[in-house]
Amino acid sequence: MTTSSLPGDGRRRAVIESVSPAVDGGRFAIKRVVGETVVVEMDAFTDGHDRLACRLLYRREDEATWREAEMKPLHNDRWRGSFAVTELGRWRYTTAAWVDGFLTWRHDLARREDPEDIALALTIGARLAAEAAERAGGEDAAELARYASGLAGDGALEDRRRVALGERLHALMTQYPDRSLEVRHDVELPVVADPERARFSAWYELFPRSCGPGGRHGTFADVEAQLPYVAEMGFDILYMPPIHPIGRTARKGPNNTLTPGPDDPGSPWAIGAEEGGHKALHPELGGVEQFRSLLARARELGIELALDIAFQCAPDHPYVQSNPEWFRWRPDGTVQYAENPPKKYQDIYPFDFESEAWDPLWRELESIVSHWAEEGVRVFRVDNPHTKPFAMWEWLIGEVKRKHPECIFLSEAFTRPRVMHRLAKLGFTQSYNYFPWRNTKHELTEYLTELGHGPGREYFRPSLWPNTPDILPEYLQLGGRPAFVSRLVLAATTGASYGIYGPAYELGENVPRDPGGEEYLDSEKYQLRDWDLERPDSLRELIARVNRIRREHRALQHDWNIRFLTIDNESLLAYSKHTDDLDEILVMVVNVDPHHVQSGWVEIPLSDFGLDDERPYQVHDLLSDARYLWNGARNFVRLDPKESPAHVFRLRRRVRTERDFDYFL
Amino acid sequence: MTTSSLPGDGRRRAVIESVSPAVDGGRFAIKRVVGETVVVEMDAFTDGHDRLACRLLYRREDEATWREAEMKPLHNDRWRGSFAVTELGRWRYTTAAWVDGFLTWRHDLARREDPEDIALALTIGARLAAEAAERAGGEDAAELARYASGLAGDGALEDRRRVALGERLHALMTQYPDRSLEVRHDVELPVVADPERARFSAWYELFPRSCGPGGRHGTFADVEAQLPYVAEMGFDILYMPPIHPIGRTARKGPNNTLTPGPDDPGSPWAIGAEEGGHKALHPELGGVEQFRSLLARARELGIELALDIAFQCAPDHPYVQSNPEWFRWRPDGTVQYAENPPKKYQDIYPFDFESEAWDPLWRELESIVSHWAEEGVRVFRVDNPHTKPFAMWEWLIGEVKRKHPECIFLSEAFTRPRVMHRLAKLGFTQSYNYFPWRNTKHELTEYLTELGHGPGREYFRPSLWPNTPDILPEYLQLGGRPAFVSRLVLAATTGASYGIYGPAYELGENVPRDPGGEEYLDSEKYQLRDWDLERPDSLRELIARVNRIRREHRALQHDWNIRFLTIDNESLLAYSKHTDDLDEILVMVVNVDPHHVQSGWVEIPLSDFGLDDERPYQVHDLLSDARYLWNGARNFVRLDPKESPAHVFRLRRRVRTERDFDYFL
Repeated sequence: MTTSSLPGDGRRRAVIESVSPAVDGGRFAIKRVVGETVVVEMDAFTDGHDRLACRLLYRREDEATWREAEMKPLHNDRWRGSFAVTELGRWRYTTAAWVDGFLTWRHDLARREDPEDIALALTIGARLAAEAAERAGGEDAAELARYASGLAGDGALEDRRRVALGERLHALMTQYPDRSLEVRHDVELPVVADPERARFSAWYELFPRSCGPGGRHGTFADVEAQLPYVAEMGFDILYMPPIHPIGRTARKGPNNTLTPGPDDPGSPWAIGAEEGGHKALHPELGGVEQFRSLLARARELGIELALDIAFQCAPDHPYVQSNPEWFRWRPDGTVQYAENPPKKYQDIYPFDFESEAWDPLWRELESIVSHWAEEGVRVFRVDNPHTKPFAMWEWLIGEVKRKHPECIFLSEAFTRPRVMHRLAKLGFTQSYNYFPWRNTKHELTEYLTELGHGPGREYFRPSLWPNTPDILPEYLQLGGRPAFVSRLVLAATTGASYGIYGPAYELGENVPRDPGGEEYLDSEKYQLRDWDLERPDSLRELIARVNRIRREHRALQHDWNIRFLTIDNESLLAYSKHTDDLDEILVMVVNVDPHHVQSGWVEIPLSDFGLDDERPYQVHDLLSDARYLWNGARNFVRLDPKESPAHVFRLRRRVRTERDFDYFL
Repeated sequence: MTTSSLPGDGRRRAVIESVSPAVDGGRFAIKRVVGETVVVEMDAFTDGHDRLACRLLYRREDEATWREAEMKPLHNDRWRGSFAVTELGRWRYTTAAWVDGFLTWRHDLARREDPEDIALALTIGARLAAEAAERAGGEDAAELARYASGLAGDGALEDRRRVALGERLHALMTQYPDRSLEVRHDVELPVVADPERARFSAWYELFPRSCGPGGRHGTFADVEAQLPYVAEMGFDILYMPPIHPIGRTARKGPNNTLTPGPDDPGSPWAIGAEEGGHKALHPELGGVEQFRSLLARARELGIELALDIAFQCAPDHPYVQSNPEWFRWRPDGTVQYAENPPKKYQDIYPFDFESEAWDPLWRELESIVSHWAEEGVRVFRVDNPHTKPFAMWEWLIGEVKRKHPECIFLSEAFTRPRVMHRLAKLGFTQSYNYFPWRNTKHELTEYLTELGHGPGREYFRPSLWPNTPDILPEYLQLGGRPAFVSRLVLAATTGASYGIYGPAYELGENVPRDPGGEEYLDSEKYQLRDWDLERPDSLRELIARVNRIRREHRALQHDWNIRFLTIDNESLLAYSKHTDDLDEILVMVVNVDPHHVQSGWVEIPLSDFGLDDERPYQVHDLLSDARYLWNGARNFVRLDPKESPAHVFRLRRRVRTERDFDYFL
């Protein structure tokens, strides 16, 4: 029987547990944007009654040495510290703790009563100070040495004890602790610091080919001409479906039919033709110069272009000829097209990620994204990432962000929860989610609480879309204009990031191809549409107002501060968002019944909002500009969907001035 | 800019997450007893629509190869499998998943409609079967080869498809899957399999020195004479405070006074004198032969002896001379005694675990436990483990259990929750806990729910003690006999493991040394006591009955099956325990008010208990032997603490026999 080995140094007596935040024990990064704070907590303790000192260590991933921040005890052996991620890119953090001889000694000294004990303790303290002097340099070393001789000197006992317990010695000793028996948490936890747009963004999706005047096939120049329209509505990301050559083999006709006419443009997701593949531009959209001009002009207007990354090929994609090993060949010598039996998608060849040549395939796919990143594109919406290997995305996004840390990847995975979360964990910056199908008060409350307060919030940043080219929810089909307004307000005020597929959205497009289905009739996925942007019933001005409110209120630029308020009507949803300092308190009330007037009493948590129970306060509806004086916690709200299905109130406290006038902040 | 490296084999597309149970991600072992099952779950999924196969892998830690069990999908990408720990000692488990080509192919084939597709799929299936034939041997290989040629043959399409989808091929292919792209969970999770007594035990603590007749200092022979008394009460662990030589320097007198008389025996926790230290026996208790006889006789009666491990020294312990480097020396040349300023414990020298000589110190301490384990002792109650390094315990318990895996260590740490949990995680088999101070219905419900259903239950096995020599709770001081009865029933029926400090308990000893304190007056810690075990008011018969009920009912031998029942009286606590098969359903009702009659309506969850709403059932009070007929969910209970403050009901279903007589199971 051999003896099992002892741990490295059994004298390291501190214990660290339950360090948070941590995604899967540190396997994946938490997400922040530049300038944000990471609040780190841990359990730390030791045996017996000795005192601990704890530190938070953090660094940029490419730095060799840790920076440090103090951690302070909360209660129940929990400690907390924080640091800010001040630059883009990957960071790491971990924690340290040690049994601190000085702190233990000081704590005991303060409680000693017997003069002999105190005298003996002071001589021990003198030794601790002398040892610290050896660790310190310059002035501090000299000062510590003076403390050492003072504590052990012949001054009056009570005087020496007072000096020993003084703040100055405490501060000096804290600066030069004995960390020889320090314990480190055994994981370095990663953080990704993204640009602010990763957390706070308003997306607008349009099909460039529908931007041509009078039904002509649109070009990048036409999109550029439409930029002011998008900018006036207040969007800061313009997302275009794939802009690459469209395959001709098995091309789809209008409404997803299999019998296209010769002029039908096909689906832009059927990527690749003789003109090129994922790095080429569809000729009818204009050339690379037009594309670059669009990108530059958009940026001048504060808009980033988002491209669509759809890793799949039309049958006439050049890869099929140049790299047949990237596809799965069937015994009859044909390529396996996409299918989910009995459904078939003969116009799409998926890559075979179990190919022996997976390594060059991954590198090629990465080179596609890097190609567009090198063109200056910073935002990518990724099509169906859940049908490609998770490990590929983790590697690819890591590669691209290592070169371009400001890049944003939006995951278009409408699938099972674990799969969506895995994609978010492994690196997607933002994620589509179940918002399109959460319509009732109960559904919205439950889901938005999960998004804003569940453990997934450390890595899953939702982007809330009331519609997409694939999803015309039944709620919009049936609810008419009030539904479009309420869903927009909900998306834009519950989510720091949201988006719409336009002009279908602002023009209230709501006719499905099939009853009970979610596909649009005459969908732009298969044909051009000639939108009348100037229609008087367009929601563009409302959208512009909502986006302006978002920009002007920091409280709406975060997901984690949502709080649902009690309101006694099952069709009225009430929620608040406020800044930490209570400078901005917003209360939204939305009527989720698009057909009937609904009213109820909403409960305002006055003391949490720093409001006075006795004093009225103003609620200012930023949508309608109306103002109301409210009193106390319970106040009446009535929303007629025909007028407006939503309030976006800013609460304004009444402030008494020196001259005894009141005004509202 | 270099390219970051690709993962090992990017074609491994399965993902494994959230494997449970796992303590701190697998850093610590979960606990089971021999014969128990470990139910393992995980999230497993892959990209796209392909089908997974999943396996649970497990082995004894000293085995080289894994055994396997199938895992089945639950819902939401969760999978479950299980295995039994059939032998004592440490085990490991982990999980595996792979994208299964055959299962995917089979799933798709069942859904295909186009005959050409079906024909093509069958030729692909033939290839899969042929590949499996290569992995199989003997008969199975031949059978798979026959399937391969049949699927690709010229039989009718529908016939071939039927064969392809048949259960026989499915079973064969499941036996020889292609696991070349298998993914393993990256942690091997440990399990400790303990003897059954680790989960289910009844402890009795006594001071051997009080076992002498007529006030004479007791010996091991006297304890042996008292064994039948303990066995008749139904206890299976007899725990004795330290049995080693007691120090003379700074010895404590009765009631913890500092002025002992020459005949005062001192505290047995002041270990060590010229007669020896932790491996020696206190001479007045008798020699090693008497000790061995006691151990052997106890085992014949089904009782294990538990020794007290208190790693601390009286000033005259031989270690102080032989190994001064294991103690902390003060500048005045004295050894630092135990203290928590301003309190001092001059009779106790703690070890200095920051000693340079920590390594030989640890080895010496381990040798103490191993010494007694080699004498045949299998149960150790460890005194104040939270004042010694955590790493030391983890190593020491690991060492001892490697040699003697049947050993049980009870942690006597009444301290902060994180510290108590850490000790349980690192290896203590059972743990003292806050039970002595949980007295109200709310406190008991909350705490016992945490113990039985919280995540800590995987490693923290509570031992519930209504009293100890250090703890005479106020509830017992004030509540009289009803309090002693109700606390005993609570401990013994909520906890699978419990214990009492006797004969103080069965004799209702309840006078504190100081008002408001929890120390016993005339505590056995500092003096001998002459107990009258035959007193007519002794609770010994009640205790014997309760322990018999525990032994006869498996439902009471587990902690995880506790369920609190609704009862409309704040002084009545109602809870159930039942076996998985509902063969035994026990319902306990305890009046936690020791002073007043309390009554109320208890709600029985009939359908969960397999009881019929329409049909009466019997409740049989196993304490009083009374039987009542109950009807429906709500039934009336009344408990007079003067008679009995508790019911321990066994619910008996009425069964209709063939001859149309009823009887109760």
